[in-house]
This record gives sequence, structure tokens and C-alpha cells, in this order.
Amino acid sequence: MDEFSFIKWIRSNQKKDRNIVIGIGDDCASIKINGNKQCLVTTDMLVDGTHFDLKKNTPGEIGKKSMACSISDIAAMGCSAKYAVVSICFPQETRTKFAKELFLGMKREADAYNIKIIGGDVVSGKKMLVVNVTMYGENKGLNPVTRSGAKVDDVIMVTGALGGSILKKHFAFKPRLKEGQLLNKKFNINSMIDISDGLVADLNHILEESGIGAVLYEDGVPVSADAKKLARKTGFSALHHALHDGEDYELLFTLSGKESKKLLASSSFPVRLSKIGHIKRSKGISMQGSNGKLKKIKPVGYKHFK
Amino acid sequence: MDEFSFIKWIRSNQKKDRNIVIGIGDDCASIKINGNKQCLVTTDMLVDGTHFDLKKNTPGEIGKKSMACSISDIAAMGCSAKYAVVSICFPQETRTKFAKELFLGMKREADAYNIKIIGGDVVSGKKMLVVNVTMYGENKGLNPVTRSGAKVDDVIMVTGALGGSILKKHFAFKPRLKEGQLLNKKFNINSMIDISDGLVADLNHILEESGIGAVLYEDGVPVSADAKKLARKTGFSALHHALHDGEDYELLFTLSGKESKKLLASSSFPVRLSKIGHIKRSKGISMQGSNGKLKKIKPVGYKHFK
Repeated sequence: MDEFSFIKWIRSNQKKDRNIVIGIGDDCASIKINGNKQCLVTTDMLVDGTHFDLKKNTPGEIGKKSMACSISDIAAMGCSAKYAVVSICFPQETRTKFAKELFLGMKREADAYNIKIIGGDVVSGKKMLVVNVTMYGENKGLNPVTRSGAKVDDVIMVTGALGGSILKKHFAFKPRLKEGQLLNKKFNINSMIDISDGLVADLNHILEESGIGAVLYEDGVPVSADAKKLARKTGFSALHHALHDGEDYELLFTLSGKESKKLLASSSFPVRLSKIGHIKRSKGISMQGSNGKLKKIKPVGYKHFK
Repeated sequence: MDEFSFIKWIRSNQKKDRNIVIGIGDDCASIKINGNKQCLVTTDMLVDGTHFDLKKNTPGEIGKKSMACSISDIAAMGCSAKYAVVSICFPQETRTKFAKELFLGMKREADAYNIKIIGGDVVSGKKMLVVNVTMYGENKGLNPVTRSGAKVDDVIMVTGALGGSILKKHFAFKPRLKEGQLLNKKFNINSMIDISDGLVADLNHILEESGIGAVLYEDGVPVSADAKKLARKTGFSALHHALHDGEDYELLFTLSGKESKKLLASSSFPVRLSKIGHIKRSKGISMQGSNGKLKKIKPVGYKHFK
């Protein structure tokens, strides 16, 4: 099957949508935009050996993850995800079955969040599988929540539990799309990011953008069962894994003390929430131990280049 | 320099734009969309060994080409290009100078067409350089020109001259953005595509989408000087190169006989135009020789998979 047949097969998987004026198969896709809206855009590239391992992961898992990472970025803005365009570079020896399973992994994840794949590009490369997803979202009258709005004395909170994602979660995570929108709609969230580089590294992105610092509470960080499991193998503490492992894809956000109380009092929030620290005026990140003492921590996380 | 420093450097290259609500550096970019508009979207992945060769091409050339390919897709819809998000996978040993030159190649090309780079992703991979550009355009009140609108008896036309792009043009081409918009604004263009897979292969995309066939005129096809030069090396005819070589990035379009006369009579069109054939009801592509005889031709062009 050449790429044109593959694209035809992909098109045969599509449903009509009245806002998609031009869908897969032309030089561009076109979506209809009404009213005074913002269009959110994010793009994520996943590469064999870095974000997945062809020896370990199924094509369906890789497809799912590529879509979920971009959904998570829209979630981190507190907005709605709507459309995606995807590019795939298949190694030359790729079988049709593999290609289809990869796409179906993308499509199942997109479908689960009611996102339409409206276009893309399929190419071949010498060896390496590469997948790129660009996703579009809408603000639906809300202000997207940026990384730069954190304020002094804000409470720092996080969804779910952290660390050890490499054992399973980095392919099985559920992007917090509903939760991000709920936070943005019902509460005054000052800043938000999804945790892909690691809690401390991503918190540092917020701090740098907002020009401030933070204190984390050692007892407040929600340590996952997999962080504990991994700690038994690595010799690092489970807390270390919760602080520095990447790819948890939980939401990390800051809001006023008053808003955080309102949030914690609302019984309907669909996932676990933890208060893990607060924003301070002076730069840098400190960890407050159970004894109350402060210790500086460095914002290290996964880096693609050294 | 790690990827965060690289992204900071990229941001320092950006100018403000009142329609970019959120630019580079957050989870998503956000653009303001006013009124009842369509947002055009295209994505293109370029891979080492397939679309460029790190041993031969400069990083600036690679960056420029990646941007130009996406601009060409917007041109092929007869629309305006506005914003781009870019993903780059650098091999692990990449030097900062190389990374910056690649980005500057993208940016210079984007600037030349007044396109803003609003976001992106930077990752590292084992070996292969991969660049993905997703581009956004606007229709500005016009209907985007698709591949599916060709009508029986339409005249088939093409901009520029074709073939031998591998000698130079595939890195030096100018996307026909202005020309595509001019065609769409001033004339009734029924179908359009940019030539990336080769004249015959891309014409075939129009024919398949429109459910019809075509006759090409052997004497009408504009054969480039580089097609002739290449023919002396390859043993194929220059016409063969003009018909089947990819990456000319010229515009191939169809319109009624009346509109084509109007177009050819307009003295102000900025590039060479050639009438190369017509649309017929019965499927397939034939070539009409100078002796008037018809010969079937197969829609072969570059294929990523076999």
C-alpha cells in the first residue's frame, strides 16, 4: 500500500462535520470559524527512542500517546480541543498493518475526546518512526490559562499522583481535558501547565514566565504507587521520582488561597487534587520538609539537549 | 544550549502582533479570529534522506524548504498564509549554530511572506533530523480552491516551467502564494494543486477527486532548462522529467475555456502561464503528440511507500 492508498483508507474512517469545510485529502483542510473566538494551537513531535520505543510499544500505544500529549496541552490552557492534523514518518520497511494500527490508536484517542482529525502528511524516512500532531482548540468565551499568570501567595495544586510514569502511565495517561476546562470555567485559575518535563521542571516554567518563586511542601506532593515501586529499583526516593519524573500529564496550577478553598470544598471535582505549595516573591524553588525547614531544589527535569 | 534556551532564543526573535493572543512559550498558542472566516490548515513533514540530505544541504536551506512547502499548500488553495507552528527533531549531537541556522532559514522564509511563527516543539532523536511545519491561512472572503472542482472541458494550466527540480529548484523555489491568491480573486478557478509529487501524479490527484480524466498536450508542457540539463545525464527525455519529477511547487489548475482566455489576455500576471491540456469525461490521462495522436500515460510520481 502506498501513501495515497493509506490516506484513502484514513479518509474512509472519517465522518462529516458541518464545520469542516475541507477535510483530509486536499492541500489544506479548512474549518469554519464563527464569531469572535480564539483558536488555540499546539504541536508535539514524538520520536522513536525518545518518546516511545518500537521494541516495546505497540503502534496503537504510540498513536494514542501522540494524540494524548497534544490534548494535554489544550487541557493545560483550560480550553476545548476540536481538530487535529497529523504527520507521520514511517520507516521504509513499515507494514500496512502497523501503519493502520498506529492511525487507529490516534483516532480512538481523538474520538474519545470528540476531536476530528482533519488533515495530515504521510512520508517515509530511512529508519526512524516520527509522529507529529498539531491540535486546535477553542476558548469558548473563556480566557485561556497561561503559564505567566501566577501571583505571590497563590496556592500551587496538582491533579492526580506523580512519579514513575515510565512504568505504565506515559502510555496510559488520560489527558485532563475535562478537568482543565472545569477549572477554567468554575474557578479563577491564575496559571496552569501540564506536567511533561517533571513537576519541578514544569513548575519552574510557570515561575520563570511569572517572574516569581515557590515553596513546595514535602508532605503535600502526591506520590504515586508507581513512584514507590520504581524507587525500590532505582535507589532514588519515591518523592524524588514524583518531583522529577516526566510524562505524568497531570495539571499543575496556581490560584488564590480563597479560590483553592472553594475548589477543595467542591465535592464534584472528578480527580484527586493536592495542595503542594505556594508562590513567593523571591525567585527559586524551596522544599519545606515535615520539620518545617526549607531546602533549595534545582529545577531539573528531562532535557532533550544538554 | 538545552531546548529551553533554544526556545528562549527563538522567542527573542519574535515581534508582537495584535492577533496573537498567546505566542511561543506556553502550552498552546492562541490566535484571535474575528468574523465569519475559514481557517486553512496544512502540515508537512520533512525528513533527512527523503526531503533533504544533511550531507549536501545547509541548515538554512532545510529550514527555508520546510516553510516554503507549507506556504505552497496554502497557495494551492488560493488563500493567504498567516501563522505557522514548527516541530524540529534534532539528532543528539546537533550544535547550537546548526539549530539556529535552521530556525533562521524558516524565519526568513516566513518573514518574506509575512507569516508569523507562533509556536512549536523541539525534541531530540537518535539520528535523524525531522522538521514539521503546520501552517494556518485565511480565506479572506474567498472560497478556497480544492482539488475536486475540475469540470469536463476545463482548460488545464500551470505556472512556471517543470522538471529537473532536483538540480536546484527543490531548495530554491518560490511558493506561488501571490499567484494563487490572484488566480482565486480575479478568475473562476475550478480546481488547483501545487506540484510536489510531479505534474502527472498531481494532475491525477485532481482527476481522482473530481471523478474525470484529462488530455495533456505534448507541445504545451513547459519544460525547464534544468529538465533539459538533467535529461542529458539520465537518458530520460526532458519531457519525461517535466511530467514526472516532483518538487516543482508550481501551481496546476483548471478553469473554463472562457476564463483561461481572460487569464491569458491579462498582461499583469507575474509568472509564465502555460495551457497544457484539457479535462475530459472519461477517466485516465492521455498525451496528445504533435502529430495529434493520443497515447495513455500512467500517473506515476514519487511514492513514499511501494
